Amino acid sequence: MHDVGGAGRRDVIVEAAAVEFDRDGYATASIAGIARAAGVSQGSLHRSFPTKHAVALAVIDEQNARTFAAMSAGDPSPIGTLVRASRGIADLLMRDVVVRAGIRISLEHGVLAQQTASFYEQWIAGVVDVFRLAIASGEVSTDLTPEALGGTVVPYFTGVQLVSNVRSGRADLLPVVATMWRVLVHAVVDRAHRERLLRVVDDVFA
Amino acid sequence: MHDVGGAGRRDVIVEAAAVEFDRDGYATASIAGIARAAGVSQGSLHRSFPTKHAVALAVIDEQNARTFAAMSAGDPSPIGTLVRASRGIADLLMRDVVVRAGIRISLEHGVLAQQTASFYEQWIAGVVDVFRLAIASGEVSTDLTPEALGGTVVPYFTGVQLVSNVRSGRADLLPVVATMWRVLVHAVVDRAHRERLLRVVDDVFA
Repeated sequence: MHDVGGAGRRDVIVEAAAVEFDRDGYATASIAGIARAAGVSQGSLHRSFPTKHAVALAVIDEQNARTFAAMSAGDPSPIGTLVRASRGIADLLMRDVVVRAGIRISLEHGVLAQQTASFYEQWIAGVVDVFRLAIASGEVSTDLTPEALGGTVVPYFTGVQLVSNVRSGRADLLPVVATMWRVLVHAVVDRAHRERLLRVVDDVFA
Repeated sequence: MHDVGGAGRRDVIVEAAAVEFDRDGYATASIAGIARAAGVSQGSLHRSFPTKHAVALAVIDEQNARTFAAMSAGDPSPIGTLVRASRGIADLLMRDVVVRAGIRISLEHGVLAQQTASFYEQWIAGVVDVFRLAIASGEVSTDLTPEALGGTVVPYFTGVQLVSNVRSGRADLLPVVATMWRVLVHAVVDRAHRERLLRVVDDVFA
């Protein structure tokens, strides 16, 4: 056992807890297992996080922060921004256990339902804002409201990454996210911008 | 405690287990709780299902059977068939605890991963077949293959119902599934069939 103080110890515990949650889910993972994986004593873990619930919230908070950071990738085209952001999040899902664990335990609902709902509301609100810009700029042309668009794109991505995990352990994640974008571009992007954005999808997911 | 024999007892246990799994998830639900909810002794439960894993598989099998029954709603239009099937599954998710529980524990992966993957493969294969018909009949006109279409529609629906559960306990399930169909119809349905199918979506989800 080693012991690093304060913020460093918190980070080590959050990473270790993510490995446990990602592998076993919230209900099965134990404080003892998390402490062991983090290489800290249970007493030390307890000083940072009094309960398993508190560790889980820290994993979800960190997942949210890393996911939203990927969302803010700059691109002059609103839909291009979303396409790049989804590639960033796909990369995080493939290589960042904190993001994977946060998404997994969020969707196991129950005790974490409130945080999960708040995460989805924030994520959807961010995507709604992008669609507002895209409609205002003429990039998107559709009967659907920005709220309906944000409220369908976020669940679409959620399902695509989840079923990719079930079917292939996310080995097919990039092509299935690319297919999602081809559907969305054909459904809502104005004809004048369609070919350009289909090329962006091809480039970003090549 | 009462005790009904054979198939009757199995059904009672599967329904009771579904209530427990739906509320608590696979890892948290217990054999003792399931027996209590079913009104049978643990010994009696054990004769039908030797392990919690075996009960979970029975719930998933029953969920699969009920879900696939909803998929075979007849309609001369292939996409019309899928739209009606998705309404049938949405109704099951709202009122049938076995379907809700089966979907929930399937997506908690881990111990049930193999059954879950097989369920998704079957479901996707069924939707791929419908898209083959729809392309052959000219109802669907797209660059995407039937495999890519099946492989994106099933995850889309999965994510939509899951996020609807997180956001509203599925209170908004019908409108969000309708939005999914509006996106899909605009994305892949041939122009000649688009207005008719948008009206089908409006009717089915009214």
